[in-house]
Amino acid sequence: MSDLRLPAESAAIIERVDQFMDERLAAESLPESLDDAIRYALLAPGKRLRPLLVALSCQTCAGAIEDALPACMALECIHAFSLVHDDLPSMDDDDLRRGRPTLHIARGEAMAILAGDALMSLAFRALSTASAPADRQAALVGELSRGAMAMIEGQVYDTFGGLDRELSDQERLELIHRNKTGALIRAACRMGAICADAGDDRIGAMSRYGEAIGLMFQVVDDLLDVEQSTERAGKRTGKDQLAGKLTYPSVLGVEKARAVIDEQLEVAKASIAEFGPAGGSLADLADFLTVRTA
Amino acid sequence: MSDLRLPAESAAIIERVDQFMDERLAAESLPESLDDAIRYALLAPGKRLRPLLVALSCQTCAGAIEDALPACMALECIHAFSLVHDDLPSMDDDDLRRGRPTLHIARGEAMAILAGDALMSLAFRALSTASAPADRQAALVGELSRGAMAMIEGQVYDTFGGLDRELSDQERLELIHRNKTGALIRAACRMGAICADAGDDRIGAMSRYGEAIGLMFQVVDDLLDVEQSTERAGKRTGKDQLAGKLTYPSVLGVEKARAVIDEQLEVAKASIAEFGPAGGSLADLADFLTVRTA
Repeated sequence: MSDLRLPAESAAIIERVDQFMDERLAAESLPESLDDAIRYALLAPGKRLRPLLVALSCQTCAGAIEDALPACMALECIHAFSLVHDDLPSMDDDDLRRGRPTLHIARGEAMAILAGDALMSLAFRALSTASAPADRQAALVGELSRGAMAMIEGQVYDTFGGLDRELSDQERLELIHRNKTGALIRAACRMGAICADAGDDRIGAMSRYGEAIGLMFQVVDDLLDVEQSTERAGKRTGKDQLAGKLTYPSVLGVEKARAVIDEQLEVAKASIAEFGPAGGSLADLADFLTVRTA
Repeated sequence: MSDLRLPAESAAIIERVDQFMDERLAAESLPESLDDAIRYALLAPGKRLRPLLVALSCQTCAGAIEDALPACMALECIHAFSLVHDDLPSMDDDDLRRGRPTLHIARGEAMAILAGDALMSLAFRALSTASAPADRQAALVGELSRGAMAMIEGQVYDTFGGLDRELSDQERLELIHRNKTGALIRAACRMGAICADAGDDRIGAMSRYGEAIGLMFQVVDDLLDVEQSTERAGKRTGKDQLAGKLTYPSVLGVEKARAVIDEQLEVAKASIAEFGPAGGSLADLADFLTVRTA
């Protein structure tokens, strides 16, 4: 599977999103130290998976990518904020992220807290300064705030527990990840459709696609943590095992975890079958997301 | 001045806001530990100044207070989040707030970070789950995200400096506080007017009122820090002096700081003169806010 690549238009989309975020950030005229910290976290080299999902979902629903840029930025801001705060000493205490020192190592803990807070604010600012019609803006704010809240809930379950004791390990794991990573990935796909003024049917199809690749993404991530070196992943790996955290390979075994990936890949593709060739890029992206396990 | 009281309807408004926040929070069905931490920070006994400003500004512009409740909640959530994060060990390292242990003392630092993040999310959720027309929702999100961002900027200037070296101490102080406390108070007044579907003129009048009482509020707060005991204020006092921070009394002297209060009180009242008797409650509130220095 190693010849799988990102959809052809991805590089151009990511470049456009980064340019938009750079310009939008400059327009805020923030204090220099805050601007610097936000850029460190937001514009670091990264996969830009969530903005890519927004843009490709918008395109699949026959929308223009330019109209999706504020939503692309909003999602990446929420994602970046969550990484900065999750890495803090009192949280996961990570010192490496995307191959570089984490923000609190590079700029201090107080700035990391404030920059994370500012990134969350900036996400909603990006949506509200867009020229989109008010009803679209309101719908996007609804999706984003729901996704961000679910992500925080997932982090709470992951850190503090508190899930129903009757649940099996697998149910527990799915509930954590459906919130922690899944909700924002799903929101990205839905928001892309909303930016294209898609109807409820198409937003629903994007939801199902997003849920499937969200779950797939997490299983791939867990397998990476077991199989890859820290150097290659650009962040500390093997930590989940050390911390005794539930992961898909630890609960299901490596082979069954791989089977979940195959199964969710099929669900993702089936969800967008109705779009025909227009869904090709999202199908390619789903394929690409599995390759990281190879 | 000790017979000055909150406007007569304040207690009923605060009770209604607290009830609304309680119900809205219950509807989120959050993990128990997170719900508990959010309630600890959000529903603690407090002045509820920002929701009160939203409600009274809405009422002054002939709107119904019920229509302003989501905005009331949104402002109080942003305020509560900022207190929780500002109190953290790597920030102001405060152990007492509203007469009780701060959230990170009571529930741990990781939960305080997450609950703060959740409160910011919840602020935007409150606006987007309201039944208000989309254009009003979009306008409210714009005001709230602008206010929250300015607040964070003010905190950055206050913590890390970085202001133009040409500025005088007084200019520096005003710039910090216009952002740190002023922007959210101004946003509260504007959002109240927006909830009443007020036109730009009336929103502008509320802006000027909000700016004046925002500045006044900060000067009063600085004087309290000098003059009051920790027990009476319900938070550590005298800290500004110890930390060598710029404060109005330290820059202007106590007498001139008091004169700023009188001056801004006049500006506040002049800003709402056009509303006639309908502005009575906001005028009373402005009077009340000065009494804390007595």
